[in-house]
Amino acid sequence: MTIPWRERPIGVVGLGLIGGSLALDLRAQGLAVRALVHRQATAERARQRGLADQVSTDPAVLADCALVVLALPLDRLLEPSSELLAALPAGAVVTDVGSVKGPVLDRWGPWPRFVASHPMAGTAQAGVEAGLTGLFAGRPWVATPTDATDPEALAVVRGLAEAVDARWVECPAADHDQAVALISHLPVLLGAALIEAAGQAPLARALASSGFADTSRVGGGNPELGTLMARYNREALLEALARYRTSLEDLEQRVRGGDWPGLAQRLSQAQAQRPEFL
Amino acid sequence: MTIPWRERPIGVVGLGLIGGSLALDLRAQGLAVRALVHRQATAERARQRGLADQVSTDPAVLADCALVVLALPLDRLLEPSSELLAALPAGAVVTDVGSVKGPVLDRWGPWPRFVASHPMAGTAQAGVEAGLTGLFAGRPWVATPTDATDPEALAVVRGLAEAVDARWVECPAADHDQAVALISHLPVLLGAALIEAAGQAPLARALASSGFADTSRVGGGNPELGTLMARYNREALLEALARYRTSLEDLEQRVRGGDWPGLAQRLSQAQAQRPEFL
Repeated sequence: MTIPWRERPIGVVGLGLIGGSLALDLRAQGLAVRALVHRQATAERARQRGLADQVSTDPAVLADCALVVLALPLDRLLEPSSELLAALPAGAVVTDVGSVKGPVLDRWGPWPRFVASHPMAGTAQAGVEAGLTGLFAGRPWVATPTDATDPEALAVVRGLAEAVDARWVECPAADHDQAVALISHLPVLLGAALIEAAGQAPLARALASSGFADTSRVGGGNPELGTLMARYNREALLEALARYRTSLEDLEQRVRGGDWPGLAQRLSQAQAQRPEFL
Repeated sequence: MTIPWRERPIGVVGLGLIGGSLALDLRAQGLAVRALVHRQATAERARQRGLADQVSTDPAVLADCALVVLALPLDRLLEPSSELLAALPAGAVVTDVGSVKGPVLDRWGPWPRFVASHPMAGTAQAGVEAGLTGLFAGRPWVATPTDATDPEALAVVRGLAEAVDARWVECPAADHDQAVALISHLPVLLGAALIEAAGQAPLARALASSGFADTSRVGGGNPELGTLMARYNREALLEALARYRTSLEDLEQRVRGGDWPGLAQRLSQAQAQRPEFL
């Protein structure tokens, strides 16, 4: 690889859960990290936590970086400020961590040496306090290169992912967006609808147990994040909902019609299929 | 309480997860437990595990009991063998552990001193190896008495529940069945439908993470149990599905129409409501 990204500071824009965790892991390897954040208070707290070597609200902090990771919420990633755009060093590899890739490529694809990527790791926490070491170890880091993607830039981002022990995956953006609609974004709506439905029966609150808690967990998660995912992965999410509705209606028909062998067969298939996802 | 249930052996019919766990907890308190099981191999293994003082496939084992707990699968509970019925001692308090109470009352309500109850505890395990101590501690033990329920018998079952540190709850059977439809039986179908839908996208398997795992856990559970629950709580489950569909369709309409503030509001409500269930 001819881009000396390890020998120059690595820029991280945003020090929330993903940006902060990435910065910590890179620093732990002795790599220099320069972070750009939005608010002065965030910068001060990030310095206290030692998340980066330099933290600033001034985009000039990125000046020497050969690799910049945009660890921003989807809306700010897709509508970047003109100051940020002006501050990205010419020739630097730029990647993102957004959970939807089609709209990211629409916006950033023409940028020189841009690589669309999505490290699929997380906790329920957010903000400057959330970053922690080892978040990416063993987790997928998905890149969605196109014909226009610079192969050297792609190799740099792969090196970054492997440096934090993530599992590298490459696929078309549409495949990624379809998969995350089904496994991440659809469960948010299912869980939220379950909470709403159960909330209408007062006794349900007193009797709910781990089964309900697990099924509803992501549905009771961060509403801003859930809304951004739905907004920017809308078509894939609507398709996922349609597939899901078909499956659920089939199960419901078996219940309504008293087709217990048929229901048992479908539940057996689900039981057999689920371990393939884990 | 005038029924000396602690001074006589306690009968447990079935030594699966619930029966075996109950027997272990009772024995740990020095109470005598007589168990009736279906198969000779189960009896031998139960003796090896020390689940009860006496284990037999002969219904006569229940002869001296003042309290008998029917810890049977729903189908065998609702269609009890004539041998079992003949062996239940005259005057004994009889209770069950079934996860649906309406059909149990239809079948067993006329039985003298019957109390319909449902200890709401569990693990993913089943069978004679599954029983473990402390399963009921802090968990709800729901009784659904009717006007015909013997108050002394109800007090005995409450004493049993409290002996294993369960949390006693009394409610009408219809309220119980509605609540468990929403919090237990509906999640099975949601999770199974999610697994089916996601199974159509190969990449989903490679990328699924804890959110998918949690949302689908009960959907990938024991298919026989899921089918029995649906079968014997059919009307309540269909009502729960209808409520759920209304909630999900409302969320979907907001996604389809791009009503992001409205979606965020609904997800915020779900986030705020969920802790009330935990």
